[in-house]
Amino acid sequence: MVAPLKVGIAGLGTVGAEVVRLIEQQNSILAARCGRGVKVVAVTARSKTKKRGVDLRGIDWMKDPLAVAQHPEVECFVELMGGVGDPALSSIEAALGAGKSVVTANKALIAKHGLKLAASAEKNGGALNYEAAVAGAIPIIKTIREGLAGTDINRVYGILNGTCNYILTRMELEGLSFEECLKDAQRLGYAEAEPSFDVDGHDTAQKLAILASLAFGTKVAQSAVSVEGISSIAAEDLRAAAELGYRVKLLGVAMRTATGIEQRVHPTMVPLSSSIAQVMGVTNAVTVDGAGIAPITLVGPGAGGAATASAVLADIADVARNVRALPFGRPVEKLKTTTKAPMERHEGGYYIRLMARDLAGTAARIATRLAEQKISLESIVQRHPNGGIEPVGKSTKSSPVPVILITYATTEDAMRRALQAVQSDKVISGKPQVIRIEKN
Amino acid sequence: MVAPLKVGIAGLGTVGAEVVRLIEQQNSILAARCGRGVKVVAVTARSKTKKRGVDLRGIDWMKDPLAVAQHPEVECFVELMGGVGDPALSSIEAALGAGKSVVTANKALIAKHGLKLAASAEKNGGALNYEAAVAGAIPIIKTIREGLAGTDINRVYGILNGTCNYILTRMELEGLSFEECLKDAQRLGYAEAEPSFDVDGHDTAQKLAILASLAFGTKVAQSAVSVEGISSIAAEDLRAAAELGYRVKLLGVAMRTATGIEQRVHPTMVPLSSSIAQVMGVTNAVTVDGAGIAPITLVGPGAGGAATASAVLADIADVARNVRALPFGRPVEKLKTTTKAPMERHEGGYYIRLMARDLAGTAARIATRLAEQKISLESIVQRHPNGGIEPVGKSTKSSPVPVILITYATTEDAMRRALQAVQSDKVISGKPQVIRIEKN
Repeated sequence: MVAPLKVGIAGLGTVGAEVVRLIEQQNSILAARCGRGVKVVAVTARSKTKKRGVDLRGIDWMKDPLAVAQHPEVECFVELMGGVGDPALSSIEAALGAGKSVVTANKALIAKHGLKLAASAEKNGGALNYEAAVAGAIPIIKTIREGLAGTDINRVYGILNGTCNYILTRMELEGLSFEECLKDAQRLGYAEAEPSFDVDGHDTAQKLAILASLAFGTKVAQSAVSVEGISSIAAEDLRAAAELGYRVKLLGVAMRTATGIEQRVHPTMVPLSSSIAQVMGVTNAVTVDGAGIAPITLVGPGAGGAATASAVLADIADVARNVRALPFGRPVEKLKTTTKAPMERHEGGYYIRLMARDLAGTAARIATRLAEQKISLESIVQRHPNGGIEPVGKSTKSSPVPVILITYATTEDAMRRALQAVQSDKVISGKPQVIRIEKN
Repeated sequence: MVAPLKVGIAGLGTVGAEVVRLIEQQNSILAARCGRGVKVVAVTARSKTKKRGVDLRGIDWMKDPLAVAQHPEVECFVELMGGVGDPALSSIEAALGAGKSVVTANKALIAKHGLKLAASAEKNGGALNYEAAVAGAIPIIKTIREGLAGTDINRVYGILNGTCNYILTRMELEGLSFEECLKDAQRLGYAEAEPSFDVDGHDTAQKLAILASLAFGTKVAQSAVSVEGISSIAAEDLRAAAELGYRVKLLGVAMRTATGIEQRVHPTMVPLSSSIAQVMGVTNAVTVDGAGIAPITLVGPGAGGAATASAVLADIADVARNVRALPFGRPVEKLKTTTKAPMERHEGGYYIRLMARDLAGTAARIATRLAEQKISLESIVQRHPNGGIEPVGKSTKSSPVPVILITYATTEDAMRRALQAVQSDKVISGKPQVIRIEKN
């Protein structure tokens, strides 16, 4: 019988305590699956006395994370503290430098320091596994890195932030405003007191940067991601989307284009019939488009103690089975530098909602301005006072009326120029709302 | 630089030719991901002269599959011929016996001889990878075996046969009969001339038996699966399902129950809001319920040359990376024997469609018979002549009218006894249609 893999854990919050509990509870399955058991030999956390509902007897309590990483028996260091600086960074560096393996759920740290850490893992022979850092229990890292190892990937996109998806779901189902839903999400613990990291799209951008690296062999670079959040979305947009056969999701999208890898996070209209449109509440989902094959979509819990612990345990199991995948799927020195793709060059369809001053004249003017930019319209509809839609031109009202345009694929540059011209024409009041459309 | 993994391929149909082409085209990515390239050194197929659109120069053409498996340079034998007997079986046995690794897409062979082959792989040190055998390009084997290695699985279920899902989709969307859709599917090449293996559920049963083994640590046993096909489903059932908030899918379901592992394949009503209900056409999907976490669903192409080749290539990449997962996730000698769970013990809700002779009297009689078996009704509705539904009792028609019942969870035994009693009462004409309901 091979000796069990000896694990040290830094951080005993909800996830850490669940990992300790699962290692105990699942040990015979882990032993059968991996050819050896898993044993926690050292832990640390901020408070030694806090009640956690797990039995820590027989496990060394260390004074700090670095001591766990350096514990002579620890072969696999599990970092579950969070934070992009020390002690998470220095303790992971110490473990990898000593040839140990590391498992972490820390997406911010991987997004910021992943390349340096991966280089150390590759040089010293340890694993650096971080399945829990992106989309919780969904095995998307393993799927891209291993399950699609021989598949040429053209696009990877998904719902990577449960807070935003929860807010958009409630806005749509209950017709509420962004602010109302955010407050409720905060009250229920789905959103932080300082929500901007989630609702402005930065959390999604960190995760997307990691997925893009794995899919396209580029260096992780959060700075290469164009980011827009969901705070500008109105309940009216969600209603109109539904009527037009779409649903609005905050997507992270990374795709191959003629000019390089485009990485962007923004509210997106997806067809109601797509798998990703069905993903409601705090659930996450990721779709991968491989060359020549239909899209593959993975849906599941993106956060929560048990879901995150499930991914951490799978990573530990890979270490126990002695699997050493390259952290970013390819050697770090082969990863290519990626730069921010200018959104002006983005190509796709657009949803545009604007307030027309004088309906008949406005429609003609808008059509002209769009035609000047060679933009074709899939539909142009006017919102009814009762919330429905009808073809433009049926109303005789003279006060501003909301009009919704759906364009066929065009460039963002052309769309912006057309809207600027429409604004200069003074036929609309206020600023148009623009949401990009992502088709399957 | 490590030498490339030397591969021999038996079978050069659509999948085999695509694998040869992809290995050539993706070689630099494979080399970066695996630390070594992949090289095809030997092949065989029925016809040497058939045009395949791939360059076979420099590759040894062998007289038969066994010669490929025994080729002195071949380290990884890729079986893409199909068939449960020889030459597929004997050539795989020869390769494994010599300590070589094997990659196959042959679900029938794995379902029938998988245990024997896995034992040989474990003894001799080779891998036995068969990701393509279940759900095509969806990495469900890897997900259960590795991605959920530390997660206690309670249920795995899915749409595993594209032919059936294609037929059910067209029946629902176009209101066609099973026979019409089957004929069309045959004409379009989605169904075989002899369709019973697909439409009677046996293909799904083979795949389910493999998934159950991986999820629950049981010996693969197709004979332990209860199987019903889709030929009894009427367009009217699909219409009624939609009105009641459900959709009918042919599901394979394996789940832990108090009396063991229940494995069953049958038409199933799933909630319209579930991920699995959105899966239309030839697409496949699998959902895994882990203890304490929300379900994880994987959706993607279940068949086709490129999709199957994608999974085969991922398996080859694992061999190249020197990963040797246990074929069934646990050592073969630790797998438990599983027996066929009697469907009478199955617990769940039921959709029942029957023709009531005299509506008022029938409703009372049915309610009494169900109450005798302690079965509660979620709803009982009568079909309108125009296809709609309305509460029972509003019609005064005296000719038989279709009535639809939805029950709360009960045992199959109780449901069958209640229906038998209703039939003995002679208040209905014909045999009731019964479809099991699977909730998330």
